[in-house]
Amino acid sequence: MSSYKSVIVGLGAMGMGAAQSSIRAGLDTVGCDIRDEALAAISKAGGTASKDLIEAAKNADAVAIIVVNADQTEAVLFGAGGLVQGLSKGAVVLGCATVSADFSRSVGARLAELGILYLDAPISGGSLKSAAGELSVMASGSPDAFAKAKPLLDAIAEKVFQLGDDVGQGSTMKMVNQLLAGVHIAAAMEALSLGVRCGLDAEKIYEVITACAGNSWMFENRVPHVLEADYSPRSAVDIFVKDLGIVLEEGKRNQFPLPLSAAAHQQYIGAAGMGLGGEDDSAVIKVYQKMSGITLPGDND
Amino acid sequence: MSSYKSVIVGLGAMGMGAAQSSIRAGLDTVGCDIRDEALAAISKAGGTASKDLIEAAKNADAVAIIVVNADQTEAVLFGAGGLVQGLSKGAVVLGCATVSADFSRSVGARLAELGILYLDAPISGGSLKSAAGELSVMASGSPDAFAKAKPLLDAIAEKVFQLGDDVGQGSTMKMVNQLLAGVHIAAAMEALSLGVRCGLDAEKIYEVITACAGNSWMFENRVPHVLEADYSPRSAVDIFVKDLGIVLEEGKRNQFPLPLSAAAHQQYIGAAGMGLGGEDDSAVIKVYQKMSGITLPGDND
Repeated sequence: MSSYKSVIVGLGAMGMGAAQSSIRAGLDTVGCDIRDEALAAISKAGGTASKDLIEAAKNADAVAIIVVNADQTEAVLFGAGGLVQGLSKGAVVLGCATVSADFSRSVGARLAELGILYLDAPISGGSLKSAAGELSVMASGSPDAFAKAKPLLDAIAEKVFQLGDDVGQGSTMKMVNQLLAGVHIAAAMEALSLGVRCGLDAEKIYEVITACAGNSWMFENRVPHVLEADYSPRSAVDIFVKDLGIVLEEGKRNQFPLPLSAAAHQQYIGAAGMGLGGEDDSAVIKVYQKMSGITLPGDND
Repeated sequence: MSSYKSVIVGLGAMGMGAAQSSIRAGLDTVGCDIRDEALAAISKAGGTASKDLIEAAKNADAVAIIVVNADQTEAVLFGAGGLVQGLSKGAVVLGCATVSADFSRSVGARLAELGILYLDAPISGGSLKSAAGELSVMASGSPDAFAKAKPLLDAIAEKVFQLGDDVGQGSTMKMVNQLLAGVHIAAAMEALSLGVRCGLDAEKIYEVITACAGNSWMFENRVPHVLEADYSPRSAVDIFVKDLGIVLEEGKRNQFPLPLSAAAHQQYIGAAGMGLGGEDDSAVIKVYQKMSGITLPGDND
């Protein structure tokens, strides 16, 4: 095993995959979570399981924080029993959650005061790519931070986009990606449900559109969830309530109008209002269904 | 040369490509347009050029109408000197423009009264695929209409999606495709311009997004037009003013709300209002630019 100590905080689908990739790469890997079953999985995979962030942070070279949002990132770093109480000077923190560029800059500045390096490093790719060590990382930070993080990045990522020294650029690029992802999922469901309302077969729509200019990565990936009537959350409606919220806040701060993002955001909020916030984001089609009474795969009819 | 006589009406980029493919396949091909330079190109390619629709229609096996909209389709078929005055019983007409399903059904019914077959056959793929004989055709109509049209379809299309007997299903599928295409182009420009406003490099955005889940066929195809500052119309802003108009009319008729399509439509209308209706549809980014003052490739700065 390498003497490089990596810590993964947050063992959801994305974090678990990253931790497994880190173990597989031979790094001395600690996985942190509050859930016992996630910790058991880390131990079984050959890593060290821990609920104690301060202990985990001691002598760590790199800590990747793979949690849901800014509040959780704030808590695991600076809250009671948080990572900064254990981290050494010269260690690097990778902020992997989708957060605003402003929040990321604030984290970077506070860590810099403590002599801790920071990489603004949101990830993309989903749980399968994460488990395979093939994440995409949209990263910005100092050359020192990139250098210190390299063994962990090599372990978890297929592509590391180096977006410059300015902490915040990574989160800005992730925001651009989430704007498109969120709009494309809602557009896929708007188009699919209109087609069904007008008498087309849903499977046929998928076959034709994926071969035509109307296709998107999200159309191709999410429409099968609807065709299989499987709304178990690969990524949840609530994630886009949050992420398009970040997009729209950033737009407002810059006095930059975002009509498509705003329209898509309303559809996710509508889905959440229907009680579907924890379902797969493709469940936004149920908002369109509610308005139109269409029959979808899996409905009793 | 085959004894199968095909007629292509409308020699814009898409029609010219289809006519060339028909000639290359050995069909007895007539190209019709009002512009002398288009007719000269057809003669040079080995086809017969004609401004006389009635004459062109005589003894034709198949006539593909590749014009801009429903009004032009109506005029070349049923207007003064229109095709129906020359067409024989048993000939097949392919309606290739993007039109409403209702209009297409009306055309089919009126042709049926004259003993003329009709295929609701919108096309997709752009001018390059058209020139290569590799269009996608979203087609519906009777088995007789498909059988009669087969030599021409084989000549011009790589993929023919057979969507059933019901004239109107082809146009409905094309509408679903155009909904997605129109939303995706506007979303690409919204995301790209927000990223630039927040300090990202436009080329870098293209590199990252095309490798991530935010990608779409249209993002990948249209953003280079912006990066190269080339707004010569491959497909114009006005096309999406029209096509998303068809989408929204169909939605209203079905009492089916389409918030993303409506938001995207407004951006194309805004671009047309800026005098950009004849520019490439990627020029919708100039609406976002006007609101935010961002600098785009090609601007004097």
